Amino acid sequence: MSTTPEPIRWHDGVLELLDQTQLPHRVVFERMASATAVRDAIRQLKVRGAPAIGIAAAYGVVVAMATAEHESVEQFNETLAHVCALIGAARPTAVNLHWAMQRMRRVATTANTNDLVLLQQALAAEAEAIHVEDRAICRAIGEYGRSLIAPGRGILTHSNAGALAVSELGTATAPLYMAHAHGTAFRVYVDETRPLLQGSRLTAWELSRGGLDVTLICDNAAAHLMAEGAIDCVIVGTDRVTANGDVINKIGTSAVAIAARHFGIPFYVACPSSTFDAATARGDDVIIEERAGEEVTRIAGTDVAAPGVKVRNPAFDVTPHTLVTGFITDRGLFRPPFDLNATFQGSRR
Amino acid sequence: MSTTPEPIRWHDGVLELLDQTQLPHRVVFERMASATAVRDAIRQLKVRGAPAIGIAAAYGVVVAMATAEHESVEQFNETLAHVCALIGAARPTAVNLHWAMQRMRRVATTANTNDLVLLQQALAAEAEAIHVEDRAICRAIGEYGRSLIAPGRGILTHSNAGALAVSELGTATAPLYMAHAHGTAFRVYVDETRPLLQGSRLTAWELSRGGLDVTLICDNAAAHLMAEGAIDCVIVGTDRVTANGDVINKIGTSAVAIAARHFGIPFYVACPSSTFDAATARGDDVIIEERAGEEVTRIAGTDVAAPGVKVRNPAFDVTPHTLVTGFITDRGLFRPPFDLNATFQGSRR
Repeated sequence: MSTTPEPIRWHDGVLELLDQTQLPHRVVFERMASATAVRDAIRQLKVRGAPAIGIAAAYGVVVAMATAEHESVEQFNETLAHVCALIGAARPTAVNLHWAMQRMRRVATTANTNDLVLLQQALAAEAEAIHVEDRAICRAIGEYGRSLIAPGRGILTHSNAGALAVSELGTATAPLYMAHAHGTAFRVYVDETRPLLQGSRLTAWELSRGGLDVTLICDNAAAHLMAEGAIDCVIVGTDRVTANGDVINKIGTSAVAIAARHFGIPFYVACPSSTFDAATARGDDVIIEERAGEEVTRIAGTDVAAPGVKVRNPAFDVTPHTLVTGFITDRGLFRPPFDLNATFQGSRR
Repeated sequence: MSTTPEPIRWHDGVLELLDQTQLPHRVVFERMASATAVRDAIRQLKVRGAPAIGIAAAYGVVVAMATAEHESVEQFNETLAHVCALIGAARPTAVNLHWAMQRMRRVATTANTNDLVLLQQALAAEAEAIHVEDRAICRAIGEYGRSLIAPGRGILTHSNAGALAVSELGTATAPLYMAHAHGTAFRVYVDETRPLLQGSRLTAWELSRGGLDVTLICDNAAAHLMAEGAIDCVIVGTDRVTANGDVINKIGTSAVAIAARHFGIPFYVACPSSTFDAATARGDDVIIEERAGEEVTRIAGTDVAAPGVKVRNPAFDVTPHTLVTGFITDRGLFRPPFDLNATFQGSRR
């Protein structure tokens, strides 16, 4: 459906990861032959996006276990624990990574066999299952979301919640890919997404490769295009949705939501139902990561700002649920009033 | 009052321009010894900002005329016409440039003398008058605006309407410099202002040099900082204000105004009264310049975006008068309802 290369290739026990740090200039796949290679690839952001990290890590476990020799189930499990701990430490705050490592370890404990070949096969099957589940979730999001995209419309997205961050169709991009595959002609506007330019480097790249009609804009031009009438709908992804429906996503998302409300343009958030965090009451309860000022003052290796100037560089922001028109999830399209606690009780994987 | 170097130095008949293309890395003044040097400096954006261009051009005429030999008033006026036409063609759409060239030519015609030395002195006096008037306008804006800045407050500005674009105090920056000079302690947040980074390259630089407490942010972080409560007031400049009070300014200004309104934060526009354009009814009547996509896809000489992707790059946007809390001008502070036609009738220089 999309000609965007998936960020994770798995074939005959060989794992290859697309080095996203080289995008959009070079499409380079790196073969991962060890646990440390996978850990380093995650650490260096060669693979990024919470779901993609989880999938890559799971395959990494399979690869690492296949290259080791074991004489007993005990020894196998010992190595497995070591490998999972090593890869799992790549990015300490990535929830999907830990969840994937837990699933891989659980497979070995519940396999109920002493046959090391069967154990290894069970690991491979589990990693593939994680991957397949993720694809299915993205497809479901795409199916529920594509009805929002009418012919001739302009859709704005921010940051990268695309195939590169997830698998196959992405989350915010899934309705776009699906609508395009069904022959709907529409325009996509992509915010460049300062400071790390995920929009211009990744989203604009993957949607263009997918054959969509893509126009790149500076973040601060979105309101102007809304005023012009070029944008009919906003679809973004999210890192976390709190119990009341507040949305934590890449910095700049709330600015887009505020402008969309000002112009009466619907603002949708696409995400797996597992993104709903019933344990956190509201967005204000979430601590927003502040990143290094150099991300702002240094672009493509060149200093662009006044030397020594102070910088605030929040990586995320909170879009209050009152600005959200609806959530596009793998379980359907949800509109306010959001009773997410009841809807998704126990849905966290 | 400010330690920011003024972009234009004039002393004993010597004209030096700060090469703003090298900021913030290098502070280099270039001596201008001919009409073509001044024209090229304007063309290459070494000097920028409509008022600064007008001032530089006027001094350029004085320099060019001083180096030429004339045997009669007729010959003097002939050269003057040629010099004014040459410098005036540097940037065809810059209103202040043409207005300054008109003033310089008018001096010679109205001087009522055949003494070439006196004529040359009259030209120098006129150029200095243009410069002095501009300084006085900025000071008046600063005086009227500084009462808006209370101790401990956070002020956001966008793009560069500072000393570098005008003279001495700038327009949007004048209230900041004045409040600082009067000992008010406050914070300034500066939007980096994509795509050309006037905020990070110029405004953050000049305000830091002026000793102000400056924090640089990405354009798309402004709404987040407003939500946090860090920003109490917005002050921006403008390129043109239409008769109904709509504001044409650097792309991203309207997004800031919309967010400010959402959070109940006052949004002020600082400008000389000459910026009011009574002949244009409303912002929608103004054609917005679209600039090259490369400004967005190429940063500091490096391609950062998907190759060949379409770009929309509007250079300005329209902030409707309904989002403007007030205008800070050299004639006072004006709040709605704006009757600018009556207020500024005949004020265009």
